[in-house]
Parts: sequence; structure tokens; C-alpha cells
Amino acid sequence: MNTMEMLATHPDRSTLAQGQAELVAQLLECAETCTSCADACLAEPKIDMLRRCIRTDLDCADICQATGRVLTRQTQPSAELVRALVEACATACSVCAEECEQHAGQHEHCRICGQICRDCEEACQRFAGGV
Amino acid sequence: MNTMEMLATHPDRSTLAQGQAELVAQLLECAETCTSCADACLAEPKIDMLRRCIRTDLDCADICQATGRVLTRQTQPSAELVRALVEACATACSVCAEECEQHAGQHEHCRICGQICRDCEEACQRFAGGV
Amino acid sequence: MNTMEMLATHPDRSTLAQGQAELVAQLLECAETCTSCADACLAEPKIDMLRRCIRTDLDCADICQATGRVLTRQTQPSAELVRALVEACATACSVCAEECEQHAGQHEHCRICGQICRDCEEACQRFAGGV
Amino acid sequence: MNTMEMLATHPDRSTLAQGQAELVAQLLECAETCTSCADACLAEPKIDMLRRCIRTDLDCADICQATGRVLTRQTQPSAELVRALVEACATACSVCAEECEQHAGQHEHCRICGQICRDCEEACQRFAGGV
Repeated sequence: MNTMEMLATHPDRSTLAQGQAELVAQLLECAETCTSCADACLAEPKIDMLRRCIRTDLDCADICQATGRVLTRQTQPSAELVRALVEACATACSVCAEECEQHAGQHEHCRICGQICRDCEEACQRFAGGV
Repeated sequence: MNTMEMLATHPDRSTLAQGQAELVAQLLECAETCTSCADACLAEPKIDMLRRCIRTDLDCADICQATGRVLTRQTQPSAELVRALVEACATACSVCAEECEQHAGQHEHCRICGQICRDCEEACQRFAGGV
Repeated sequence: MNTMEMLATHPDRSTLAQGQAELVAQLLECAETCTSCADACLAEPKIDMLRRCIRTDLDCADICQATGRVLTRQTQPSAELVRALVEACATACSVCAEECEQHAGQHEHCRICGQICRDCEEACQRFAGGV
Repeated sequence: MNTMEMLATHPDRSTLAQGQAELVAQLLECAETCTSCADACLAEPKIDMLRRCIRTDLDCADICQATGRVLTRQTQPSAELVRALVEACATACSVCAEECEQHAGQHEHCRICGQICRDCEEACQRFAGGV
């Protein structure tokens, strides 16, 4: 997806922060990966150990998706809201990464998801520091 | 909706914080009201003054909906995540309430929405203080 | 939530179909109940039998939520889209109800969720027949 | 995003239909583009002509997002539900494309969005025909 190209068509691009389009792309990728990891965990024979992983995946997907929508909008944004939301999103990614990393040796979906959550957490922190 | 009754059927109710079911109900009401207010603003003859109101309504709806889902889940929650998210949600409600209140004299949908956002903001703050 | 009162504040109420506000309220209740049932299933000791129930709950929650948002909007709707979406939603509710009903004897959350999905399915069918 | 790679980690890949991973990627791109187009329309000086476009964008974003989530899940799917939902999604894309195309000469965001909605509509129709 060329998120950058689409966001650049907004009539008032002055509100677009440095790195915002890249963060949106990462948030959407993280949301999709978490939705996928939750579903893959749900089909694993040893599901008992993956209950918390499913839960953190579902939370992280919902929060990344909402954050991705808010950051896509450039019309008269509230910097205060953006900062608070991106910080909460960094926490969601961190919690999910920590859980997924514990199953990374057993399940490829958890290994990939843990890495993408960690990347997204760092991108959120960098962005929140600059808003 | 009897959110309380449904949340009480979870096998491990020990993770349900004081006031959590009530907050979920308020979050869902606020999300729906904001979706409705954005759409009513979109049909107003004097839409030019309501652009920011539509934007804050859309943000608030997305954030309240995600927060409502996270708080509905009782399986092995992360207190750190819940607190950060509910605080970000309080900010979203505050930003939206402030905007809606400016149009409360002209538009009944903004008056109702401003009030429900303010109530939800306060409920979020109370809850975040106790997690 | 007084969905009816809020929807009545829209500047052009002529697009609101018979029973639309009631259906929105049912869709939101069904979405919340399914989110809650998926999470309760996730914490059940005998989770192995509940994998498909979690999956149908998650699908039904996503679809009811999207349908609830679309039906909340009254600004220049597309009757063709509304009909197709409400029919798909009836199918989602039916699939979820059928699954939940199989566990209704064991789990109170499945019993409640099955019933609410069945009610929502019927409401969707009635509404789609009249659009 | 490498949706294909992630979907391939599911323990039971036998339920993944031909073209499903590609469709998920298109649905997510369409959802993001519609969210972005609605917000760009909201900031246009001549917003009066774009009211319906904002509305169809918001609907299409919600429906594509829900459909993307459902198609991401591979655990014990219901073919009946998938077909009905993907068909409703094709309708949403068609309605949105038709509206966006009317503003394609004036607004680059509408031109891009109209094209992506049309591509997604066709992908949905192809997929629904094969389920």
C-alpha cells in the first residue's frame, strides 16, 4: 500500500508530522499480524499455553487499528490526543511482543508477530517523542 | 444491554475491576453517540463550522470502541495497558466534548454528544485512578 | 442507551427506515455479547471444544459492529448496500447462534450469546425484508 | 505487508481459499484509502458536494475492515458467511467507487480512492464466485 501517496493528497498537508505516514503503515501491518496470530494460536494443538497470547493479540489489533485511523486523519488534529493514544499503543505493542516472544521458538506466527509488535512499539515511541 | 450480566459469566471474574462493566456500557454508548453526531453534522446546512466536530467525533468513536472491547476482556489482562488506554480515551472524550459543546446551542446532536463525552471522560478518569 | 433519541436529532430523518434505531441497538448489544463470549470461552478449562465458538464470536462481533455503524448513518444512504450488509449480518448471527447453542448447556455465556444472536438474526431478516 | 507469509503460518492452511491472502491485502488497502479520502474530503473548501462521498467512504472503510478480519481467520470458517460478506463488501466498494469517480476530476484523493474501490470490488466478486 502506498499510504504516503494517499496521505499526500490531503488539502492541508501542514498537519502531517514527520514519519506519520510510515507509522500508519506499521500500525496497519501490526493490526493485521495480530489478528492473524490470534487466529493461528486458536488452531494450535497446545492452545492452553496460548490463551494470554490470543488475548494480547486481540487487544493489540484493536488498538493499532484505532490508532491507525486517527493518525490517517489530518483535518485539524489534537496533538494532545495523538500523543496519549500513540503512547497507549506503544504499551499495547510492548505487552503483546513480550507475550509472543515467549512462544517464538514453538510457533512461527508468534515469532513474526513478536518482531512486528516490537518494531511498531519503537516506531510509536519515536513518534510520540516528536509530537 | 445488560453488560453486567454478561461479564459476570466469565469463568474468572476476579480480574473484573470495580466499575468496569459500567464503564464498558458508557464507552459503547459514547462510541455510538459520536458515530451518530458525526453523521448528523455531515448533513447540516452549515457544515463548514462542523469540520473539526466531525473529525473529533470519528476519533472518539474509534477510540471508545477499541477501549470498550479491551475492557470487555477479562482473560489475563495487563493493568499497565488498561490504564494507558483508558487515560488516552479520557483525552479523546475531553477533546470531543470541548468541540461539541461549542455547537450545543445550535445542534441538539452536539449538545447530547458533548454531555455523553463529558460523562465518559469522567468515568474513564475515575476508573484509571483506581486500576 | 437511547439510540432512538440520538438518531432523531439528524437533520434529515426521512431516510430512517422503520425499526432502524431498534436494529442498531440490537446490533451493538450483539457485538458486545459476542466479544464477551469469545473472551469467556478463552478462559474455559475445556477450551478445546470452544475453538470454533471463539472464531464465530469474533466474526459476528466485527460484522455486527460494522453493520451498526452503517445503519447509524442517515446521510444519503444506499438502500442496495444496506440490504446486502444486513443480510450478510443475519448470516453471521445465524452461524454464531448455531455454534453457541451447542454449548448452551455447559456455559451460561454461550447460552446468553446464542439467544442474543438468534434475536439479532431475526431482526436483521425482518429489516432486510422491508428495505 | 507480507500478508501471504503471515497467513501461511496457520497450523491448518487447508481452509485458505485461492486468492484469499491477496484479497485480504486489497481489503486493508481499500479500508485505509477510504478512511483517508473521507478525511481529505472533510478538509476541502467545496465540502458541500462531498457529503455523500464522505458517507460512502466511512461505510466502505468499516465494511472492508470487518471483511479483512474475517478473511484473515482460517480456523474453521463458514463458507456461507464468507460468501455473503464478500458479496456485501463488493456492493460497498461499488457504491463508493461510483461516488468517488464523480469527483475524480476535481480531487486526486477521490480519483485514487475510486480506482482502489473498483479494484477491490472486482477482487471481491472474483473471490465470491469461487468460494
